[in-house]
Amino acid sequence: MIKVGVAGFGVIGQRLVDGVLLQEDMELVGVADLAPTLAIRALKEKGMPVDLYLVEGADEEAFKKLGIPVAGTFSELVDKVDIMLDASPGGVGKKNKELYMSKNRKAIFQGGEKNDIADCFFHGYANYEKGLGKDYLKLTSCNTTGLIRAVDCLDRAFGVERVAITIIRRVADPGDYHRGLTNALQIDKAPSHQAVDLMTIMPHIEATGILVHTPVTHGHIITVVVHGKKKISAEGALRAFESHDRIRLVSIDEGFLGNASLFRYARALGNPRGDMYEIAIWRDSIVETGDDLMFAINIPQESVSIPETIDAVRAALELQPDSASATQLTNKYLGMARWKK
Amino acid sequence: MIKVGVAGFGVIGQRLVDGVLLQEDMELVGVADLAPTLAIRALKEKGMPVDLYLVEGADEEAFKKLGIPVAGTFSELVDKVDIMLDASPGGVGKKNKELYMSKNRKAIFQGGEKNDIADCFFHGYANYEKGLGKDYLKLTSCNTTGLIRAVDCLDRAFGVERVAITIIRRVADPGDYHRGLTNALQIDKAPSHQAVDLMTIMPHIEATGILVHTPVTHGHIITVVVHGKKKISAEGALRAFESHDRIRLVSIDEGFLGNASLFRYARALGNPRGDMYEIAIWRDSIVETGDDLMFAINIPQESVSIPETIDAVRAALELQPDSASATQLTNKYLGMARWKK
Amino acid sequence: MIKVGVAGFGVIGQRLVDGVLLQEDMELVGVADLAPTLAIRALKEKGMPVDLYLVEGADEEAFKKLGIPVAGTFSELVDKVDIMLDASPGGVGKKNKELYMSKNRKAIFQGGEKNDIADCFFHGYANYEKGLGKDYLKLTSCNTTGLIRAVDCLDRAFGVERVAITIIRRVADPGDYHRGLTNALQIDKAPSHQAVDLMTIMPHIEATGILVHTPVTHGHIITVVVHGKKKISAEGALRAFESHDRIRLVSIDEGFLGNASLFRYARALGNPRGDMYEIAIWRDSIVETGDDLMFAINIPQESVSIPETIDAVRAALELQPDSASATQLTNKYLGMARWKK
Amino acid sequence: MIKVGVAGFGVIGQRLVDGVLLQEDMELVGVADLAPTLAIRALKEKGMPVDLYLVEGADEEAFKKLGIPVAGTFSELVDKVDIMLDASPGGVGKKNKELYMSKNRKAIFQGGEKNDIADCFFHGYANYEKGLGKDYLKLTSCNTTGLIRAVDCLDRAFGVERVAITIIRRVADPGDYHRGLTNALQIDKAPSHQAVDLMTIMPHIEATGILVHTPVTHGHIITVVVHGKKKISAEGALRAFESHDRIRLVSIDEGFLGNASLFRYARALGNPRGDMYEIAIWRDSIVETGDDLMFAINIPQESVSIPETIDAVRAALELQPDSASATQLTNKYLGMARWKK
Repeated sequence: MIKVGVAGFGVIGQRLVDGVLLQEDMELVGVADLAPTLAIRALKEKGMPVDLYLVEGADEEAFKKLGIPVAGTFSELVDKVDIMLDASPGGVGKKNKELYMSKNRKAIFQGGEKNDIADCFFHGYANYEKGLGKDYLKLTSCNTTGLIRAVDCLDRAFGVERVAITIIRRVADPGDYHRGLTNALQIDKAPSHQAVDLMTIMPHIEATGILVHTPVTHGHIITVVVHGKKKISAEGALRAFESHDRIRLVSIDEGFLGNASLFRYARALGNPRGDMYEIAIWRDSIVETGDDLMFAINIPQESVSIPETIDAVRAALELQPDSASATQLTNKYLGMARWKK
Repeated sequence: MIKVGVAGFGVIGQRLVDGVLLQEDMELVGVADLAPTLAIRALKEKGMPVDLYLVEGADEEAFKKLGIPVAGTFSELVDKVDIMLDASPGGVGKKNKELYMSKNRKAIFQGGEKNDIADCFFHGYANYEKGLGKDYLKLTSCNTTGLIRAVDCLDRAFGVERVAITIIRRVADPGDYHRGLTNALQIDKAPSHQAVDLMTIMPHIEATGILVHTPVTHGHIITVVVHGKKKISAEGALRAFESHDRIRLVSIDEGFLGNASLFRYARALGNPRGDMYEIAIWRDSIVETGDDLMFAINIPQESVSIPETIDAVRAALELQPDSASATQLTNKYLGMARWKK
Repeated sequence: MIKVGVAGFGVIGQRLVDGVLLQEDMELVGVADLAPTLAIRALKEKGMPVDLYLVEGADEEAFKKLGIPVAGTFSELVDKVDIMLDASPGGVGKKNKELYMSKNRKAIFQGGEKNDIADCFFHGYANYEKGLGKDYLKLTSCNTTGLIRAVDCLDRAFGVERVAITIIRRVADPGDYHRGLTNALQIDKAPSHQAVDLMTIMPHIEATGILVHTPVTHGHIITVVVHGKKKISAEGALRAFESHDRIRLVSIDEGFLGNASLFRYARALGNPRGDMYEIAIWRDSIVETGDDLMFAINIPQESVSIPETIDAVRAALELQPDSASATQLTNKYLGMARWKK
Repeated sequence: MIKVGVAGFGVIGQRLVDGVLLQEDMELVGVADLAPTLAIRALKEKGMPVDLYLVEGADEEAFKKLGIPVAGTFSELVDKVDIMLDASPGGVGKKNKELYMSKNRKAIFQGGEKNDIADCFFHGYANYEKGLGKDYLKLTSCNTTGLIRAVDCLDRAFGVERVAITIIRRVADPGDYHRGLTNALQIDKAPSHQAVDLMTIMPHIEATGILVHTPVTHGHIITVVVHGKKKISAEGALRAFESHDRIRLVSIDEGFLGNASLFRYARALGNPRGDMYEIAIWRDSIVETGDDLMFAINIPQESVSIPETIDAVRAALELQPDSASATQLTNKYLGMARWKK
C-alpha cells in the first residue's frame, strides 16, 4: 500500500485527494494547507474525512477557533508518506521540494511550477517510461495534458508530423474571484506554451499554437490541425479516439452544444463536484482538408490532469513497468470508460 | 410509504428525484419525460437508478436505439402514484393536470405554471396550513421561495409591514444554451412578479421590487429593504436568521465573496451536482437605516425550491398537521442544518 | 453622382449609411425601415440627417406620434435610386428583391441572405471583376469578408493552397438582447460556413474550419493556419499584410491585448460609434511551423463589411474597371490607411 | 478665458479633455501622462489635437521613437493653467497636489482619491455653493455623482428623509483587461461607500446601500428606495425627473431594455466614444410601496462625472455664483437636454 500525501488543498489538490482515495493500492495519509479556505471549511462541515496538516506560517490559532482539527505539521506529513503530490500555488513547490529532498521523498509537481523543478516533464501515455524510478516528475498544464492524450492517440495509430493548435481558454474556474475577464477575448504571444510543452514530451512532433482567453469557467476548447506522416482520415481518427479510455466522443446532436454541456452532463452523472476526467472530442468537429485533419477537444480544466498525476505515482515508484499497465490500473480505479460497458 | 412520481426530468425534475429519494417516508416510482436529453443519457450511463416513463409524443424508437430502458407510459406512472410532482416545461403542466384529474391524483406544480393551475400558491413555512388536503398546489418561483423564507423568518420574530426588493437575477443555469445574455444588464417592468407573488402568500405585507437580469449562472442575489412593525435591529435579524434551518449565514471574510462562492462551497461539500438547498444571507450585508433593515440573500436557483416542494407533498397528503412538524421532517431527511451540529 | 438607398437601419444598415455619406461620388437618398427602433429614435434626436422611408407594414401612425418625419414609402425610395444596399433582416432581402427587379434597380445584399439571391458572391479584393455589371451581388458574412482580405493578400504575394481556420466568434453585438450566451462556449458543426464560403470566392483554395461562439460582443478573432504553394515565412507575411490598406498590424506590447482593445482604440480615435473598417492582425501572433504559417485576425463585426459593400456598388455599376482602382477609391473616401501617413 | 489642464489621459481624463473643449469660456492647455498608452497612440494617429506634457518618470525616448510630439513637462503645464483637472490613477493625485500647491494652482480631483485631498466633496447640484472659491475640490465616484442627481432632484421637489440603494455595478470598462469578473456576482461589505458618500454631500439624508459587482462593462444600474418627508408619488417623481437637464427618462417599450441599450443609443446618436452625460431613469421602474418610492437609474460610468467636474471648475474659480447658473452653462456647452427641444 503506497502512502501518499497532498500539498495544497486548492482546485487541483482537492481533486488529487479524491483521485488517490479511489486507488485501491494507495493510501491517502493527509493533505497540507495554510489557511482555513472555503475548501477546508467544507472539509470540516463534512466531518474531516481527510487529515489536515499545516504548512509553516499557518495560523494554528485560527484553525482552533473554527474547531478544525489539525493532525500535524507539513513536515510530519512528509515523514509519513512514500510520495508527495504537490499542488501548491505556483512557485511554492520549489520551496517544498527542499523539504522533500531533505527527507528523501519523491514528489510529483503540477504544471504551474517551472520545468527545472523536475527530472522530467511527464505524461502517462506519451512518455511514461521516461518517468520510471525518477524522484521528481512534473505534469504539463491541464490543456497540454488533455491535448497530448489526443495527439499521442493519433501518433500511435498513424504517425503525426505536425500540429497547429488554437486554445480557446476558459479564464477562471467556477468560484474564482481573484482573476477574471469581462466581455473580452485576450490573446497571448505565439507560440503558446502548450505547443512548446507538447514538443518537450513528444520531441518528434513539430507544434505551434495560439491561445485566446475567453470569459467562461467550464472547460477549455482546443482546435487541432494535424498533419500526419501519411494522410489521417476523419473516419480513422474517430476509430482511434473511440478506443481510448480517457477520451469521450460526443456530438452536438446528442445535446453536447459546448463546454458547459459537458459540465452539466458530469453533474447529471452524479460525479463528485461535477468533475470529469475524460477529455471530450466532438464527432461532428472532425474534418479533413487536403492532407490535414482538424478536430475540437473539450478540456475539463479542474480535473483532467488527475489521471496522469496518478500515473506519475506509478512511474516514480515503478509500480507498473509500462504505460499500458499503469494507465489501465489508474483508469480502472477511477472508473473511466465505464460508459463503454 | 407515499408513492411519488415526477413529470419532467429537467433542472428541477432531476433535483425533485434526488430530494424524494432522500425522504424515508416516500417512494419514488419513476420519472416521465419526452426525449433522450443529456439528463436521460446520464441516467442510462449510471445504470438507470430511476425508472423512466415516456410521455405522449415521445419517440420510443429513439430510446430503444440508444439502449435506454423504458418502464412504461406517463399514464401508467400516474396510475402507480399517490401524488405527482410536475416539473414539466412551463405550460405543459396545465395539460398534464387533466390526466391527474382524470385519474384522481394529486399534484404539485412549479413556479413556471400559471397561478390558476392550483388551488393555492404554497410555501412550506409561510402558509403550510393553507395547503393541507388540497389536490393541487403550486410553488412560487425559486426567487420568491427563497425570499419568503427570509421574510417569513423576520415576520414571525418581529412582524413585517413592508419590503422593497431588488433581484439581481442569474439569467441562465449552467449548461443552458437556449437563453443567455452577453455583457448586458436587462431590466424588467416594475413591480417584479416576485414581489407580487410574495403578497399572494403573505397578504398582510406590502411588497414591491425591481428585477435586473445579469449574465451569470450561479445563484440570484436579492437585496431586501424591510420595514418592520417596529424597528428590526441588525443584531436581532441575525439571531432570527441563524435559528432557521433553511438559511445559512455566511460572510465575506470567510471567503464567500459572491454567488459563485456558494456554488464552489457546495461542490467542495460533495453535494450531488454541487447543489445547495439553503439560501445564504451575508452577515456583513445586514445593515440598518433609520427604521429600515437591509440585507442580501443568495438563492441557489436550481435546488432552492426542492424542500418546499417536499413540504407540499406533506401538506397535500396531510402527512403532518402543521408547518413546524412538516418542515422539520423534510429538513431531517434532506440533511439540512447539518452544519450547525 | 450615383444615387444610393439603404434598406434596413439595423447594425449594418446604419453603417452603410455612414459609409455612403463619405463617398464623394455617391449620394445617399435615404433609408427604409419598419419600426421606430432605438436607431430611428436617435436619428430623430439628431434632427433627421438622413431621410426615412417606410416599408410596407410599418405603422405610420406610430412614427407620427413620435414626431418622426417620414419622406415616403420604400417603393418611392427605390424609384429614386440607382442601386439599393439591402441590409434587411435575413430572409427579407429575398422579398425586397422582387421590388428591385420590378423597378429594374440593382442591389447589393449582405451575408445573411441565401446565396441564390445574387448573381454572385462578391469580395472587393478577391473577385471584384466577377461582380462587374452584375445586377445582384451578395457580400459574404463579416467573418468571411475579413478573412478573405488576409488570405487574398497572402495568395497574391505567395500563392495559397490550403487554410484551416478557427473562428472564435463574438456571439452578440453591443446592445443585443435578443440573443446571447452566458458562461459557455458553443461549437458549430464543422466545417464552418465561413470556410465553405471562402472556397466559393476563391475556388482554387482548399479550406476548412471550426467555429466556437464566445460570450463577448467586441470583434471575432480568427486563427488561420495557411499552407502556401511554397513556404510562406512569418517575415514575408508581415510585409504583405503591412502593405494592405484594409489591414492594421498591431501588437500586444503596444497595448492591443485582445478584441476589446481594438474597440477601445477606435473609440479613442473618435471614430463614429467606435467603428473600425480594418481587420487587425497581431504581429506577435504570426508564427511558422514546418511549412505552415499561423496568425490571428481581429474582425470588427459591425463595420468590417462596409468597404467591400461600397466596392460592390462600384462593381455592379461598373464605376471602376478593376479591383485596384475601385478599392483605392473606396479606401480614400473612407479614410483608410490614414495611420500609415 | 479660463486655462485648464488635465492630468492623466485615462478613461476619465480623455473625457475631461472632450468636455473642456466644448466649454466656450475655457481653453484646454494640454494633458499630462506617463506612457504611450493606446489613448496616446490614438491621439497621435489623429494628429495631436491636444498638446501632450510628460509627467516625471516618463520615458521621453519612447515617445520620440514613436514620433509622438511632446509639448513640455507636467510642471510646465501646471505653470500655464488656472486650474488642473486631476484624473491620475488613484493615489497619484495626492503627490500631484504638492506640485499644484507649490505653484499656487487650484485643482479638481476625481472619486478615486482619498477624501482628505480636498477642501470639500463636491456636486454641481447638491452643494455647489460649498465649493465656491475653494482651492481643492473632489468629485464623488461615478455612481454617487449620478445617484445624487436623482436624489437631489427629489429632495428639492419633495424633501427626502432616507434612501436605501442597491448598486448593480459594472465591473470593468470596455477594453479593460487588468480587472474583470467571470460568471460571478461579487458582493461588498455593507453599507456601500456610495451611500456613505451621499451623506457627506447631503448630511440631512440617511442612507445605506449594498453593492454587487456584475460581469458587464456598460453602465451601472442603481435601484433606489426613497422615503420622503411626505409620501412621494410615482407620478410626482416622474415630473420632477423630467424637468432635470441631466436626467433622461427612458422606457422598456421604447427599446431601452437595459444598460447596454443606452450605450447603443449613445453610439447611434453619434456621441464621441458612444458617451452619454445623462443618467437614465426607467419610467416603468418607478413604483410606490406604502410610503416609499422605488426606481432604477442607469449610470454611464465613463462619462457621467464630466458635467459635475466642469461645474467644479466654475465653483472653484467663482465663475458663477450658484448652482443654477453654473449647471445651466455647463449643460448648454455640453449640449445636454438637446433631446427636449
